[in-house]
Amino acid sequence: MKQTIVKQVRDRVPLIHCITNYVTANDVANMLLAAGGSPIMADGIREVEEITSICGGLVINIGTLNENSIESMIAAGKKAAQLGHPIVFDPVGAGASSFRTRTARRILSEVPCTVIRGNVSEIRTIADGSGNTQGVDAAAQDRVTEENLPLLCDFVRTLSGQTGAIIAMTGAIDLIGTSSGVNVVRNGHPMMAKITGCGCMLDAVIAAYLCGQNDCMLDAVTAATAAFGLCGEQAYQRTLEEESGTGSFRVHMIDFMSKLDDEKLNGGAKIELR
Amino acid sequence: MKQTIVKQVRDRVPLIHCITNYVTANDVANMLLAAGGSPIMADGIREVEEITSICGGLVINIGTLNENSIESMIAAGKKAAQLGHPIVFDPVGAGASSFRTRTARRILSEVPCTVIRGNVSEIRTIADGSGNTQGVDAAAQDRVTEENLPLLCDFVRTLSGQTGAIIAMTGAIDLIGTSSGVNVVRNGHPMMAKITGCGCMLDAVIAAYLCGQNDCMLDAVTAATAAFGLCGEQAYQRTLEEESGTGSFRVHMIDFMSKLDDEKLNGGAKIELR
Amino acid sequence: MKQTIVKQVRDRVPLIHCITNYVTANDVANMLLAAGGSPIMADGIREVEEITSICGGLVINIGTLNENSIESMIAAGKKAAQLGHPIVFDPVGAGASSFRTRTARRILSEVPCTVIRGNVSEIRTIADGSGNTQGVDAAAQDRVTEENLPLLCDFVRTLSGQTGAIIAMTGAIDLIGTSSGVNVVRNGHPMMAKITGCGCMLDAVIAAYLCGQNDCMLDAVTAATAAFGLCGEQAYQRTLEEESGTGSFRVHMIDFMSKLDDEKLNGGAKIELR
Repeated sequence: MKQTIVKQVRDRVPLIHCITNYVTANDVANMLLAAGGSPIMADGIREVEEITSICGGLVINIGTLNENSIESMIAAGKKAAQLGHPIVFDPVGAGASSFRTRTARRILSEVPCTVIRGNVSEIRTIADGSGNTQGVDAAAQDRVTEENLPLLCDFVRTLSGQTGAIIAMTGAIDLIGTSSGVNVVRNGHPMMAKITGCGCMLDAVIAAYLCGQNDCMLDAVTAATAAFGLCGEQAYQRTLEEESGTGSFRVHMIDFMSKLDDEKLNGGAKIELR
Repeated sequence: MKQTIVKQVRDRVPLIHCITNYVTANDVANMLLAAGGSPIMADGIREVEEITSICGGLVINIGTLNENSIESMIAAGKKAAQLGHPIVFDPVGAGASSFRTRTARRILSEVPCTVIRGNVSEIRTIADGSGNTQGVDAAAQDRVTEENLPLLCDFVRTLSGQTGAIIAMTGAIDLIGTSSGVNVVRNGHPMMAKITGCGCMLDAVIAAYLCGQNDCMLDAVTAATAAFGLCGEQAYQRTLEEESGTGSFRVHMIDFMSKLDDEKLNGGAKIELR
Repeated sequence: MKQTIVKQVRDRVPLIHCITNYVTANDVANMLLAAGGSPIMADGIREVEEITSICGGLVINIGTLNENSIESMIAAGKKAAQLGHPIVFDPVGAGASSFRTRTARRILSEVPCTVIRGNVSEIRTIADGSGNTQGVDAAAQDRVTEENLPLLCDFVRTLSGQTGAIIAMTGAIDLIGTSSGVNVVRNGHPMMAKITGCGCMLDAVIAAYLCGQNDCMLDAVTAATAAFGLCGEQAYQRTLEEESGTGSFRVHMIDFMSKLDDEKLNGGAKIELR
C-alpha cells in the first residue's frame, strides 16, 4: 500500500461521476467529499457522456434500478472506458430479482469495469448464479469466515481472471483480489451493517482512490477498503463512548473519513496478502 | 401490547419492501434498520413483484409521486396481498393536489391495505374529502385535541369498517383503530413536526412490527407507533441536554430506536383503549 | 436588513414548493423546516401547477436533471409567476454539460425568476458562457477575491439588469445584487464546501425569506444568505470544539438554523453595500 495515498487523494480532489441510487446518494456525496474527492451525480441520458468526460472516475450502482438509468449507465460506462477512467460497478441486490441479475450481467458484458464491488451473495450471483441474495444484504450462508476464506480467495482469483476486473467482495472480512493475488482486509465493525449505504459509500471512495493510480490499482482499492473499515471502527468507538446509536454512528463515519490521514491509515490498516 | 415485540422484531429481521419517496428514503432505511428490520427500496415495474415476493411486508408511500411509480405500487400491492403480506399505505399529501387524492383512492380501491397511516388531513381527505391538507402537514383545524378526540375515534372506527384497514391517524395524539376499538397513543414530541419524514419512517417501522403478528395486528401497529413516539421523546430530552437543534434531534431519533428494548417500550408507552 | 425577519419567517411558516434533486432533497427539507418554512417536494407534471398554487414560493434546482422534470419545472415556474410567488432558480452544474447549460437558459427564457443563485462558474456560464464549471463546484479561477470583487459587482449589476432577477452569486464571499446595488456578504466558512447541498439548502431558505417581503426583496435574499453563512460559522466552531468532522458539521448547520433568532442574525451578519 502506498504510504501517502490519503494525501494524494486530498491533493488531487478527483471528480467522480456517480450514477447511483436515490436512497444513499446524499451519503455517497458526503463520504466522497470527506475522503477528498468531489462528486457529480448525473444520470440523464442526454448528459452522462459529457459529464463523465470531465470526471476522473465513474461509479455505477444499481441500487434503485429503472429502465432509463440502465441506458445511462451503459453510455457513461462506454465513454469512461474509452477515456481510460477507472469504473467501479456495484451490482446492488443482484439475485434479489431476475431484472437486477440480468441487468448486472448486461452491464458487465458491455462495460469493461475496473472494479466489481459487492457482498458475497451479489458477487456469487453474477459469477455463477450461486448467491443466496436476500434483499440487499448478504445471506447468512454467504458470510466470509476464517473457514471458507481459502475457498473464497480462489473464487475471487478465478472471477477476476474471467472478468478482467479487480474483485472487491466485502463483508465481515473483505477480499480484494485479482487473478494473481488477494488482499484480505480485516478492518470494519458489524455496526456498519446496521446503517444503509456502506457499500455505496465505499464504491465512491474506491473510485476516488483509483484516480491516478494506474500502476497500483489493487493497492488503491485495498487502501480505500481498509480506510473505510477503519472509519467504521473509530465511529463505533465514539458511538460507544457517547452511548449513542446507529444514527450517530453514520455521522461519525463521515467525520472520521474527513479527518483520516496517512499516519492513521498506515497504523490501523489490517491487510494480509494471500 | 405484546410484552416482547421489540425483541421479536430484532430476532426476525423482517425484510420490508419500500416503495417510497426520494426525500426521505435514506431516513426510512436507517430507521427500519434501527428498529431491527431490513429495507429493500425498489420501484421499477419490471422487478417490484419479484422483490415483494422475497420480503415480509410492503410500504407504499406517495410522497414524490410520478406516473411510473403508481403502476409499480399497484403491482407490488396486488402481489403482496396475494402472498398475505402486511401492506402499509401512506397517502402523503392527499388533498394537496387532485392527482394525489385520485391516486390515493385508486390504490385503496385496487390494493387491500392492512394499514392506512397519515395525518388527520390526509386521512379525512381519502375518507370523504373533508381534509384541509396544506402541503404535507396537517392543517391547523385538523389537529387532534382532547375536545375532538371522541368524534375522531368514531371517525376512525367508521373508516376502518369501510376500508377493512387498520387506521393509523397520527399527530400530536395518535389514534390507531379498527371498527371494534381505538388505541389512543400519547407518546411523541412536537419537535417531530420540525424534521421531514417522521410519517414515512413510522410507516416502515409499522410494517416491520406487523410481520409475523397476524393474530394481533392492532397491537403491533400500536406498539410501533408508541415506540416511534417514545424515541421522539427521548431524542428531545437529549437535544435539550446538548443544547443542539433539529439536525441532532433527527440523528437521536434513530439512535434511540437502535437502542430500544421491550423494557423501555413497556415502561414508556402511553396507550389508552377507547 | 429588516431587524425582525427571522421571527417573521417563523410566524408565517411559508410553504415552499421545491423541485430539486434526489441527492440533497432531504437536507433541503430539513434546513427549510429549521428556518421556519415548510417544504413540499413534488415534480410530477400532473400536479406541479396545483401544488405550486397552494404554496408561497418556488425553488427550481437542476441538480439531477432529466427530461420529465424540465417540463415540470417550466410548468410550475409559469404558474408561480402568474400568482406572483417568488421563484428561486439554481442552475446547478451549468457549464458541466451542454444539456445543463441549454436547460438553464431555456428555464430563464420561459420563467421570470425572482432570484438566480449559483456559484461564480454557474452564474458566468448562464450570463455569457465564460464560466469554468468543473462538476458542481466553482472552478479555482472563478473564485471571488478582494481583488476581483469590484469587477464582479459590476458583472452582477449588469446581469441583474439583463435578466430582471436578483443575482445571488455565492462562494467564499457572496454577492447579492440588483442593477442598482450589490450587498457583499462575508459570512460562512470553507467547511461548507466540504459537504454536499449547501447551495441547494440556501435556495430554499432564500425562498422562505422572500415570502411576504415584496417591498424589500434584495434585503430578504441578503438576510437569508447571511443567516445561512452564520450557521456555517457556528457549526464550524462546534465541530472544532468537539473535534468531530464534516458529518457532524452538516448536522450542526441545521441545528443552528433551527435556533437562529433575530438577535443572533443582527449581531453576526457581515454585510457591506457596494
